[in-house]
Amino acid sequence: MCADCGKRRIERGAHVGLVVQKYGGSSVADAEGIKRVAKRIVEAKKNGHQVVAVVSAMGDTTDELIDLAEQVSPIPAGRELDMLLTAGERISMALLAMAIKNLGHNAQSFTGSQAGVITDSVHNKARIIDVTPGRIKASVDEGNIAIVAGFQGVSQDTKDITTLGRGGSDTTAVALAAALDAEVCEIYTDVDGVFTADPRVVSKARKIDWIAFEDMLELAASGSKVLLHRCVEYARRYNIPIHVRSSFSGLQGTWVSSEPMKQGDKQVEQALISGVAHDTSEAKVTVVGVPDKPGEAASIFRTIADAEINIDMVVQNVSAASTGLTDISFTLPKTEGRKAIDALEKNKGAIGFDSLRYDDQIGKISLVGAGMKTNPGVTADFFTALSNAGVNIELISTSEIRISVVTRKDDVPEAVRAVHSAFGLDSDSDEAVVYGGTGR
Amino acid sequence: MCADCGKRRIERGAHVGLVVQKYGGSSVADAEGIKRVAKRIVEAKKNGHQVVAVVSAMGDTTDELIDLAEQVSPIPAGRELDMLLTAGERISMALLAMAIKNLGHNAQSFTGSQAGVITDSVHNKARIIDVTPGRIKASVDEGNIAIVAGFQGVSQDTKDITTLGRGGSDTTAVALAAALDAEVCEIYTDVDGVFTADPRVVSKARKIDWIAFEDMLELAASGSKVLLHRCVEYARRYNIPIHVRSSFSGLQGTWVSSEPMKQGDKQVEQALISGVAHDTSEAKVTVVGVPDKPGEAASIFRTIADAEINIDMVVQNVSAASTGLTDISFTLPKTEGRKAIDALEKNKGAIGFDSLRYDDQIGKISLVGAGMKTNPGVTADFFTALSNAGVNIELISTSEIRISVVTRKDDVPEAVRAVHSAFGLDSDSDEAVVYGGTGR
Repeated sequence: MCADCGKRRIERGAHVGLVVQKYGGSSVADAEGIKRVAKRIVEAKKNGHQVVAVVSAMGDTTDELIDLAEQVSPIPAGRELDMLLTAGERISMALLAMAIKNLGHNAQSFTGSQAGVITDSVHNKARIIDVTPGRIKASVDEGNIAIVAGFQGVSQDTKDITTLGRGGSDTTAVALAAALDAEVCEIYTDVDGVFTADPRVVSKARKIDWIAFEDMLELAASGSKVLLHRCVEYARRYNIPIHVRSSFSGLQGTWVSSEPMKQGDKQVEQALISGVAHDTSEAKVTVVGVPDKPGEAASIFRTIADAEINIDMVVQNVSAASTGLTDISFTLPKTEGRKAIDALEKNKGAIGFDSLRYDDQIGKISLVGAGMKTNPGVTADFFTALSNAGVNIELISTSEIRISVVTRKDDVPEAVRAVHSAFGLDSDSDEAVVYGGTGR
Repeated sequence: MCADCGKRRIERGAHVGLVVQKYGGSSVADAEGIKRVAKRIVEAKKNGHQVVAVVSAMGDTTDELIDLAEQVSPIPAGRELDMLLTAGERISMALLAMAIKNLGHNAQSFTGSQAGVITDSVHNKARIIDVTPGRIKASVDEGNIAIVAGFQGVSQDTKDITTLGRGGSDTTAVALAAALDAEVCEIYTDVDGVFTADPRVVSKARKIDWIAFEDMLELAASGSKVLLHRCVEYARRYNIPIHVRSSFSGLQGTWVSSEPMKQGDKQVEQALISGVAHDTSEAKVTVVGVPDKPGEAASIFRTIADAEINIDMVVQNVSAASTGLTDISFTLPKTEGRKAIDALEKNKGAIGFDSLRYDDQIGKISLVGAGMKTNPGVTADFFTALSNAGVNIELISTSEIRISVVTRKDDVPEAVRAVHSAFGLDSDSDEAVVYGGTGR
């Protein structure tokens, strides 16, 4: 199998297509890292591929630039902050192109704007609305390796430089892969791929060989950090296979795509359970003493939405018959906690509630797998595993292919390990748990 | 007089025009420097001017980026080096715009490309061929302060990012001032202006209040470092007054323009002698034993020109009648010495000479002043001063308004001081030397 595009070598000419590779900041943290990445890019080129490499800023450059900005202005202007931060990828991409040329291959670097990454005008978290990669196409067609700045674009309306927000380089890579009709978008990172759980918490976590877009989306939404939700969403929409792999090894990583693929002669099957994700970055707000009548929840969540806060899970307690009052709890990123409390307090009179409780000592554990659709037993097994581990559940939320629970933050590691083990995901486990007749 | 545009305050409305200011790397070396520059820019805005500020990269950023480039590639590719280096001004200009916004004024930063600085395609030393400052004009007309990256542009043919070479930010400022029909181009630096000699060598050197373009061109060509020749040339062509001044004080600096200007009620007169420049960055090559026949010098200088080396002074000795052989000497930048020797050695047979001598222990002293045109006594006084100081002269070259001599490098400081004093330029001198009837 071709190490780059995943096609079997036996299919002659098949792996001559275009490959988009993305290298994160940790892969290009210093001159040595840049030279290592340059070699890897040249290998893919030697394998016959056209190569477009998307690169992030070196190591901590972005944080250092933000520090500088805060030294001259407590609240840096969005347009200027984007102008500033985009210097980061400009440095890494130019150095990478030089390093490749030094290996005897032609390379050209392109800013987001030059690469045709067109965005809306929302500085610091712009969204890509179009990609017109004419210059990139021309450059690779001339035999060059094209190096593209991740994370940045140009506003369609104002022609100002924009950034896509944290993790935006992955989205740049997938969007370019889609626009260039690439065979694959390789995301190079400092881990070996997507795991069945966070290996720092579950030492027996296994690398996943293949995972469907849907499961990957749920994992990303549930706290898995390897790929961002927005990037996976984009890849699914344009059906671009993603290959998440380490820039420090030559190993195959995790393929994320719509259809299971062959690896050598082996057909990879869809797992019933893809993995266990956890997230300790959220807090819980409880609105206490809300009149149990229509429109009450709406006024609470309208307040939150007006403050531009995204919430995650919501639960409404059963109303106490004696008082006619109920409690409504929801979770949200801790970073938005202050804003949410302020917004609710400000509208206390209009909404009508007794008090607010804020709890940032919570954690969320999520089980993700397409097998849930057809196997009702999964939910029961999940709760049994948590119960056996002595973990108390505070909130529950489910989708077709995911169950999430909120627990005490301190219980999270034990809970993740218990669930991971119960579903046969441990690396020393003989077999994954199989339900009904749909399993392997 | 208006501190910014040089017009007298009494002329109402006159100083509402556009001012281009340029700040070098030492003025914006850190956050404090950026905040100081921001305040100065805001002052000019408050005085009623439209302000466009051209800024260099912070402090040693450019050198640090070149270091990084050399770590990944011994000979960095020109296109990529330009992409890399232009990150430097991107950082300083964005920070400067933020700092200005923090003072309550609107500011927008623009790259060379966004500012319409169109160049040829010679990377690392591109020349400006056009300036189309539509976005800058629109920005200042909307009431913004426009901050523009110096030193950079975009190639007309390839659309690639280019840099103008060292000192290019001054040229950016003058070119923008010309395209925007500015009243003045202010060059802010870390010295108080242009001096009658290098103050590090001549402690009694005086700041020049006004100097004509022609004299400034000769000083720049003769080793004065304050303004680059190319920048002055550009200003003369478009008749843009330059005001060289310190970013660390509020003092008036040196005005460089075509016509002497009034300062308050006082008409500044043209000095007979503008100053004494020196240069110890050159070396002397002597081609020994050249047949004294037509075409011989041509073949030597064709060889040098083919190697793309610019030479400065040339002298041919009187031929010895007995041998029919002569010596030809010329000076050139030390950095080009190796290249020149190699080129001549390679063509030794074709040119026909005995040997080459290379001497990098020389120095050049130049006296510059429009008064020379009409006062033959200047040349005699110059040589008398050097002779009295015991300085031996090796080569002589003159223009209409300049006399230059080559001496031993070690003699340069003493020679400069002697000449400076002889022409009454010392700060404790009562009066400059006056010739004939054309003086003041």
